[in-house]
Amino acid sequence: MDVNWELVGLAAAILTSMGFVPQIVKGFRTKRMDDVSSEMLLVLMLGMLLWFLYGMHLQDRIIVGANLFGVFSLLLTFVLKRRYSK
Amino acid sequence: MDVNWELVGLAAAILTSMGFVPQIVKGFRTKRMDDVSSEMLLVLMLGMLLWFLYGMHLQDRIIVGANLFGVFSLLLTFVLKRRYSK
Repeated sequence: MDVNWELVGLAAAILTSMGFVPQIVKGFRTKRMDDVSSEMLLVLMLGMLLWFLYGMHLQDRIIVGANLFGVFSLLLTFVLKRRYSK
Repeated sequence: MDVNWELVGLAAAILTSMGFVPQIVKGFRTKRMDDVSSEMLLVLMLGMLLWFLYGMHLQDRIIVGANLFGVFSLLLTFVLKRRYSK
């Protein structure tokens, strides 16, 4: 089977960087974030920050772009978590 | 500055694959997952599945291992979400 692996990698990067958007939307809508783990957000944020730096080292635009977006969306999720958690 | 980039990439892979463990622990402990977005879990699961396949293509053990672990931990998080959400 002829697979376009570039496209698979690109789709993977887009999905894992966009994944937190639904959580942000849900948080804004319900104004509740109690059940979301802060530690999860912080560990993933640090991980994606390291991926971003690793991507800078590799000069790979996809890794850089996807993880930069990921770090910022996790940061926004974390702000919502702090704001809405009781 | 002399940076061990292999180590940065490895740390990034470990953190982004382990990131859901705190959410699983929190879910088990509180038996509440209402505020966690199902769509987030599904988008990330699909993304990590594609990363896993991309890693197989690249024959990169770190990408394969980290994302396989990530897919399973997201699957477990999703099962908890279904079980505990009202």
